[in-house]
This record gives sequence, C-alpha cells and structure tokens, in this order.
Amino acid sequence: MIRLRLSIGLDYQVYDPGCDFIFNIHAAQTDRQRVLEETLTLNQNVPTQVETDAVTLNRYLRLSAAPGPLSLRYSAVVELAHHVATPTQIGEVPVPQLPAQVLSYIYPSRYCQSDRLLKLAMREFGQQWQGYARVQGIRDWVQQRVAFTQNTSNTNTSAIDTLIDSVGVCRDFAHLMIALCRAVNVPARFTTGIDYGADPALGPTDFHAYVEAYLGGRWYLFDPSGTAIPMGFVRFGTGRDAADVSFATIFGTVGSASPRITIEAIPGADGQLVTPRHSSDALSTDG
Amino acid sequence: MIRLRLSIGLDYQVYDPGCDFIFNIHAAQTDRQRVLEETLTLNQNVPTQVETDAVTLNRYLRLSAAPGPLSLRYSAVVELAHHVATPTQIGEVPVPQLPAQVLSYIYPSRYCQSDRLLKLAMREFGQQWQGYARVQGIRDWVQQRVAFTQNTSNTNTSAIDTLIDSVGVCRDFAHLMIALCRAVNVPARFTTGIDYGADPALGPTDFHAYVEAYLGGRWYLFDPSGTAIPMGFVRFGTGRDAADVSFATIFGTVGSASPRITIEAIPGADGQLVTPRHSSDALSTDG
Amino acid sequence: MIRLRLSIGLDYQVYDPGCDFIFNIHAAQTDRQRVLEETLTLNQNVPTQVETDAVTLNRYLRLSAAPGPLSLRYSAVVELAHHVATPTQIGEVPVPQLPAQVLSYIYPSRYCQSDRLLKLAMREFGQQWQGYARVQGIRDWVQQRVAFTQNTSNTNTSAIDTLIDSVGVCRDFAHLMIALCRAVNVPARFTTGIDYGADPALGPTDFHAYVEAYLGGRWYLFDPSGTAIPMGFVRFGTGRDAADVSFATIFGTVGSASPRITIEAIPGADGQLVTPRHSSDALSTDG
Amino acid sequence: MIRLRLSIGLDYQVYDPGCDFIFNIHAAQTDRQRVLEETLTLNQNVPTQVETDAVTLNRYLRLSAAPGPLSLRYSAVVELAHHVATPTQIGEVPVPQLPAQVLSYIYPSRYCQSDRLLKLAMREFGQQWQGYARVQGIRDWVQQRVAFTQNTSNTNTSAIDTLIDSVGVCRDFAHLMIALCRAVNVPARFTTGIDYGADPALGPTDFHAYVEAYLGGRWYLFDPSGTAIPMGFVRFGTGRDAADVSFATIFGTVGSASPRITIEAIPGADGQLVTPRHSSDALSTDG
Repeated sequence: MIRLRLSIGLDYQVYDPGCDFIFNIHAAQTDRQRVLEETLTLNQNVPTQVETDAVTLNRYLRLSAAPGPLSLRYSAVVELAHHVATPTQIGEVPVPQLPAQVLSYIYPSRYCQSDRLLKLAMREFGQQWQGYARVQGIRDWVQQRVAFTQNTSNTNTSAIDTLIDSVGVCRDFAHLMIALCRAVNVPARFTTGIDYGADPALGPTDFHAYVEAYLGGRWYLFDPSGTAIPMGFVRFGTGRDAADVSFATIFGTVGSASPRITIEAIPGADGQLVTPRHSSDALSTDG
Repeated sequence: MIRLRLSIGLDYQVYDPGCDFIFNIHAAQTDRQRVLEETLTLNQNVPTQVETDAVTLNRYLRLSAAPGPLSLRYSAVVELAHHVATPTQIGEVPVPQLPAQVLSYIYPSRYCQSDRLLKLAMREFGQQWQGYARVQGIRDWVQQRVAFTQNTSNTNTSAIDTLIDSVGVCRDFAHLMIALCRAVNVPARFTTGIDYGADPALGPTDFHAYVEAYLGGRWYLFDPSGTAIPMGFVRFGTGRDAADVSFATIFGTVGSASPRITIEAIPGADGQLVTPRHSSDALSTDG
Repeated sequence: MIRLRLSIGLDYQVYDPGCDFIFNIHAAQTDRQRVLEETLTLNQNVPTQVETDAVTLNRYLRLSAAPGPLSLRYSAVVELAHHVATPTQIGEVPVPQLPAQVLSYIYPSRYCQSDRLLKLAMREFGQQWQGYARVQGIRDWVQQRVAFTQNTSNTNTSAIDTLIDSVGVCRDFAHLMIALCRAVNVPARFTTGIDYGADPALGPTDFHAYVEAYLGGRWYLFDPSGTAIPMGFVRFGTGRDAADVSFATIFGTVGSASPRITIEAIPGADGQLVTPRHSSDALSTDG
Repeated sequence: MIRLRLSIGLDYQVYDPGCDFIFNIHAAQTDRQRVLEETLTLNQNVPTQVETDAVTLNRYLRLSAAPGPLSLRYSAVVELAHHVATPTQIGEVPVPQLPAQVLSYIYPSRYCQSDRLLKLAMREFGQQWQGYARVQGIRDWVQQRVAFTQNTSNTNTSAIDTLIDSVGVCRDFAHLMIALCRAVNVPARFTTGIDYGADPALGPTDFHAYVEAYLGGRWYLFDPSGTAIPMGFVRFGTGRDAADVSFATIFGTVGSASPRITIEAIPGADGQLVTPRHSSDALSTDG
C-alpha cells in the first residue's frame, strides 16, 4: 500500500465583500483511497462548510471571504490500496449493462463534444478489441497527436480545439481522450489530483487532470498527457469535464498567486516505503 | 388540479441485431406530478427495464431490439398539482446557499456555454432585481432575438450558435435561456415534455423542450420559445441540456418515423375539467 | 485536345421586385481553356452585364430580375489544351519566390482556417519532399479521412468542421485540402466547374468544387473528393474558398429548383474525339 | 492638409537560416495620401524588395534574414488630403451598382463570418436609412457591446467570438463591425495604420486596425474601437480582414520585441501645422 503526504497552499487577494468560493481540494474518500489525517487552516475567521456529493464523492469546501488576503492550507495523509488488474482481462461493458449512474459519462459535455467525433473515432478505433487495450490505444493516439506546451489553451479550449490545434496541457489531453472514449461508448470522466512524479522541468508540482474510464465494471486510471505517474494520483474531484471540477470556483473579484503544492511518498503502517512507479497493470482507486 | 391523458407512439425499423435503446418517455413522478395510470406496449417480445435516476427522477426505459419493426406505445394519465407563487415574491438563491446537488446547474454544459456569456449577460441583465423577474427578462430577451423556424438547427447547434444565427426551435431557445441564466448564477436546467397547447400551425403535437430555473428554493417552469402553455407541461426528463435528456438514445442503425403524440385535459376525480391556460403566476411541478 | 459541350439550366421563382443576382456560370477564358462558342438565354427581358475580374478571370453575370419565374440557360463549347507535366519534376515554390498576387492563397480564409492547422500539417506532412507529391499526399489524406455523403454539411461548414466530422461533399473536401496546403505554405485555391465523369449513382450531373495548388510556378488541378475526372474540368470560378465563388449569389427572396447540367466530350477540329480520362500526369488549365 | 511624420522600429532575433519575412509597414500611396519622403534602414546586409499590389495598393517588403539580430527602421513623411463629405448626403451603393473589385468585400472572410449574422444584422439595422448613418450605427452598436481590454483575444479570435465574449482589442472591434456591414450588403474592409491620438493610458503608440466602408462610391474611414483619431490615420494595408494584412508575416522561428512607433503632426509646405482632430464629417483617403 502506498501512503502519500500532500499539501496545498492557496493565496488570494479578495476585492469584493462577501466573495464566495467553492473549493474542491479535499482528497476524496473511497474504499481504496483512505484519508488517514487531514487539516485545513485558513487565515480568515469565516465559517466553512465541507459537503460530500453523494454520487461523485467530491468534497466541496464553501466559504464567503472578507476583503483582504485569503490563505488556505490543506494537508493530508492518504493511503491508496489500488485495485490492480491485468489489462488483457478487462473488457468494455456493453451499453445495455451500463449502470444508470454511469450512463451520463457517455454523453457529450461542455469540453468533450463526443457527438461530433463518432465517425472519426469509429474510423480510428472501431476495429479494435473492445477492452482496456482500446482505451489505451485512444490514450496513445492522443499523446502522439498533441504536444504538451504551457499557455497554449484557455478556459474555452475544448476537445475539438485540441484535436485541431494539436497542442495543450493536461486538462486538454484529458478532454480529448474523454471525448474519443465516449464516441465509442466507453464511459469516461475527468478527474483531478496532483501531478505526482511529473518532471520538474515542466514546472513546480501542480494540480493535474487525468481520465478515469469505466471498464469491466470499474473506473480505471489513465494519464493521457503522460506527464505523471498514475499510481501516485490522489483523487480530489471527478465530473463530466473541467466545467464540473475546478479546484476553485470563485464568485467575485480576486487576485491570485500560483498554488503551492507538495506530495511525497511516506512509509506505511508497517514502516515500509512504497513509491508509486509506472506500471503496465490496470489501476483503480474507485470502489 | 389538472388531469392530462397523453400517449406517445414511436416506430422504428431496426437494421442491426441487438440494437440498444434508452428511452426517456415515461412521465416523471414527483410530489406535484402524479402518474395515476400508465401503460407501455411493445410489438417485440423483448425484456424491458425501467430505471429511475435517484437525483433527477428521470425514468429510463432500456431494451435491446431485434431486427425488424419496433413499435412502442406509452400512454398515461397524469395529475398536476402545481406549486403556484407570486413572481414578485420569488428571489434568487445566493450562491453560498445553493444546495450542492443544484450547483452543477450553474456550470456550463455541452450546449449551454455560459462561461462565454458572462460579460454579455452582465451587460444585459446585471442591473436587474435578482429574482423571478430577471429570469423572465432573460426569457423575453431570448424570445425577441430568436425566430422560431423548423429545420434551422441540428444536433450540434449550441446556445452560442443560436445567439449568433438568431433562429432555432424549442430546444435552441431553451439552451440559450439556460446559458444566460447560468451566466448570472441562476441554476437552470433543460426539461422535456409535450408541447401542450401549441398552435397546430407549427405542426402535429410533438415533444417539447423548456426550462426550469431554480429560484426561491424551487424549480420554476419557463417556456422561452413561447409556443406552448407551461401549465400543461408533463415532465419526462430533466438534465444539464439536450445531451442528457434525449427522448430516445439509440445504439445501432435504425430507420424512424415521426412520433405520434396526443395530450388532452380530462376531468379530475371530482368530475371537473380544468384546462391548462396561460398564467402570470410562477409555476412549479418539482418537489 | 479535349473539346467539351456543356449546358447549365437554372430556374428560379422570384418573389421580391428588383431581386439582384450575380452568377458565375460562364466558362473562364484562359490560354489553355478556350471558349469556342457560348450562348446565354433568359426568359425575362432584363438587362444583363458580364464582367471579367482582371485577377481571377472569373466572369460574373449580373442582373436584376422581376417577380415571377426566372430561367437561364448557358451553353458553351470549350477546348482544353492542358499543360501536362511529370509530377516528380514539379517542386514547390519557396515563399520568397511566390508572386505577390499568389501570396493571398497561403493566408487563411472563411472556410479554410489554415492558421489553426499549422502543427497538425507539420506533423503529418512536414517531413515529405516539398513538391507535387506532397500535395498529392494531402489530397489522399483528406480522401481517406472524409466520407462523401450528401446532406451532411451546410453553408457554415468549414475545413475544421470537416476534419472533425469526417464527412462532407466536394466543397468540404476542397476546403480541407486547401487549408492543409496553406498550412505548409503551398498556395491553394477553390475552383468550381462541373463534375465531369462523376458516377451517376452520386446523382445527376452537378456543379463541382475542386482545388488548384500553385506548384512549379503554375496552378495544378486536384480533385480531393475523388468523384470526378480532373481532365474534364471546365473552370468557372476560382477564389479563396466557397465564399468567393458561389455559382449564384442572390439578394432577395427566391425559390429555386435543382440545376440541370450536361457535359459531354465532342470531336475536335480534326474530327477526333478525345475523352477525358484519369491520368497520373500533373494537369493545368491556367496560363 | 495634414502632414505627419512617422517611424516604425522592429527588432527580431532570427533563429533559422534563411528566415523569410513579408512586412506591410510602408505607407500606401494614394491620390489623397502622398508619401513625401521615406527611408528604410536595415541592420542586415540582405537584398530587399518592395512590391505594390495593383488592386489594394498594399506595399510589401520582402526579405530573407540571416540568423542573429534583425532590426528595421522605416520612417516617412506623409501628407493627407482627405476627401471630406457630409454624412447625411452619403448613401449606400445598391448591390447591382457595386464595382466588381468591391464585391468581394461583401463576402465573408476568415475573421468576419458575415454569412452567419444576416438575421441578427437585419433585426438590428434592417429598418434604418441605408447610408452613412447606418454604418455609423453599426460602429456605435459594436462600441457599446464590446469592452476594450488588452490580452483578451488571440490570432484565432473572430467576429463571432467578439460578439459572444463582448471583449477585445482594436482588431476585434474592426472584425465585428466589418462582419455586420457585410451582413447588410455594405462592403467593408480591414485597414491598418497607427493609432494616432490614442490615450497614452492604453500603452505606447502602436499599430492600429480600423475599418473602411464603401459608401457613395468611396471608402470612408471608421474607428469602431473609438480609441484613436481617424483624421490622423496613415494607411499601411487593407484587405478582407487581419488574415490579409499582418504588419509582419514570418516564415521561420524568431524572437521579437515590441514595435517602437512614433507619429506626430508637422507643419505643411505653407508652414501651417494642422493637427488631426475628431470630426463629424465623413473622411476618406482612398482615391
């Protein structure tokens, strides 16, 4: 089992009185992602509220801040007990057997216009074996066609833009992979965490966006940008696409600094240090 | 109380073996929309399954059809006990007080790119009183700028297209109104039903798309296309936009005929016939 | 030399008084496309004017029609003396040597957003020999990725839409090929004619859109939709894209019928009948 | 008559051998914009070529630079003898009377998708008197709906984006105004110059983009961003939109610094200093 210690520091300058924030920076709690300890500290003395969405398990921190500086620090120790499976044994779930609550993840969303990619996806992936390998094929296809470049996309950039422009950041890779999965009826969702294991040359440790695809009755992890190590992903939020799971949704005018994020592997209960590593196994931390 | 009898006939020619269908043609069951009786008949002897989504209360009929003709007929008697309120007394719900399960309805979705309309919406509606009247103002703004014309839009048409092209059908009016509501932080959702009271000149009775906006702690009905009578709306499905609530999602190759739909007011338990009419009250059938 | 007899019949019902038309249905006159005879007949007794654009050689017929039926019939005999060259001997023209009047054909236009395809085009075609074969490679790439299907696109459909949707008609194939050529700095223009040699299964003889690319100092013919025989193309108009060369631009409200078009090879001055055929040579009818 | 002295300094770091440049920084020479003197200096000893496009009168400077620093300095003295007319006496030119070479300016282009704005433009401007005042009305409409904000748009931003996003810089204002003019059949083109008279708070003197509309047989100046003084505009280039008239089109990899631009009114031949000022007259420097 992998044990990770992480911290997130966020700093804002609030200009409007009663500026509302919705944060999604708490580690999700699942059977396979246990939050052993966590602390939230805040420089302002305002009431906070943490709600857990019953369907996604996303945990939302809501608060109204006063004008002036707002600083949050969230830190946690999380233990991951991955479900590990052999890719060749994981098939897709035929549409009639998809659970109702999974169905919406084959429908198009703001940034993942899968409805427009049906023919393209059928041409590229229609003949492949319908299982984990096909989704891996989609991940690789995206990775080969998109160049990872900072500051090439914005909040309006969608999967279709990324396919055309052939450039983007982790969020854009995720959107394109999700759109292509849905176009071949594989449920796929947008997931946020920390870019564990990312090359320091890409910049300081940051939030990360990756993909979970529903295969063999379970949500498996994929990292289409190829910039991090999936085994070290701690899930914060999951949703249809980036529209649903911003780490901070802000209603009002604020200035903001870059987030300060750390994540490290630490020894488990048995004193053993297990470090996340690239693996050819299929991994899931959901259910 | 209004009592309505409705029927929906759908006819397909199925070309692929094992073609999967997900229908959303069952009337939703809420405290204020009671289904007194309903029947589903099918010409094929295949297993069917009706599931109710716990969050939206949408009822999905799923089946796999055999090649050849597939005919469904759904008929129901539904009683509506509207929540009726005075528009001037209904305020908006400030973001911090929005329930978690309502929050996603202020985020952008496939066809309602509210994120791009923030400045436009602020310019047009930012100075108005924050309540039912502002949402009505949005509805009227849309109605004045978009011309109802058949065959001017397709499944790719979004709120932004409708704003630019200034033409569309009920679904397009709904998408644009929803996007503008969300842009001023009013939760809004896409709802489907039957175009009760539509002018026969617009064609035979058909499925209809309209809007529910969350105001004063409740989802109120709005009909931005102005083609039907909200008091006669029987809700089938509700979702982020048309991507979530197609009346039929089909996985396979089929031919299809126009749906045959009827709806009429019938006398209630007390023998009284109450006919839906245009009203200046605020109406809700949700919760 | 190839001699072709062609006729175009157009029928409108004019609803507005003084409805203006600009037609581009006259065969262009170049050194290699000689118009031996031509006739224009019109059912309305209104003045007509034919202007030739000095740069493109497009010939525009302008008229203002009276309410009621408007019928035009244009017929011509055209002789083609193709410039014929060997593909392997035709290189691209480096940007510094491109004539000023050719330069605008490497810039993006309404339906050919080459500026967005730079990275994609560089990835797919950047390593190839810079000559006729690369342009052929672009033509083939488009042909393999787009399915020819009637009624899948409209007047708003651009090269980017076609790349995403993977479906279209001749005009869409042309736009995508043009955008990709421009993205690698090969001047390319949209050309209209008649679909000589098209499979009757695609429908009656119709207007056609194809591509001319500027290579080795000359505009060569390419047919990205692969539906017709380039050796039989009679050029009407050429421009940046379909925005410039509609066969009919109409200012007013009219009803219209399908055009009636014929084209056939006839014997030349020497009594010999030369029939256009598919050829692996590079062909040009410009200058 | 207004006499202006202007200078443009451009600095690049060229990384690729044989990097090609096409500059459009020479003042156009028209009957009403006379270039009294001009100098071009270059730090690299490479051949240069200045070509004048016969149709637009744009003057293109072409050169291939060697790796290392490339510095250009263009300076000129230009005399403007405006055609001045009374707005109320300037009508639109009916389509049948538009000269052939003006026609393409009513067609849509890369950034001015007028074809999609027909209904919107007809709704907003269809009932107005067809003359200079209607075009002024379009200019004002754009100015009221778009906020001038630096760094809100990019090279992909089109008129439709600007209409939706309601924000942009001078180029975006120009594109939207052009698209709306074309939608009501008024020829309009994109013109570049220097932002004479711009508020220093908007930053140092810079290149400017504005609009020329064809009215009463002549191209009149309009400044939809409202940031500068049209009477002081020295025209460099004109085209369908920004795709045609970049001040620098670069084929290769370079670094670049901000342009250094100056412009000032100087005394004329008679020793009189005439300073450009805001005016309610209609002004033209074309022909």
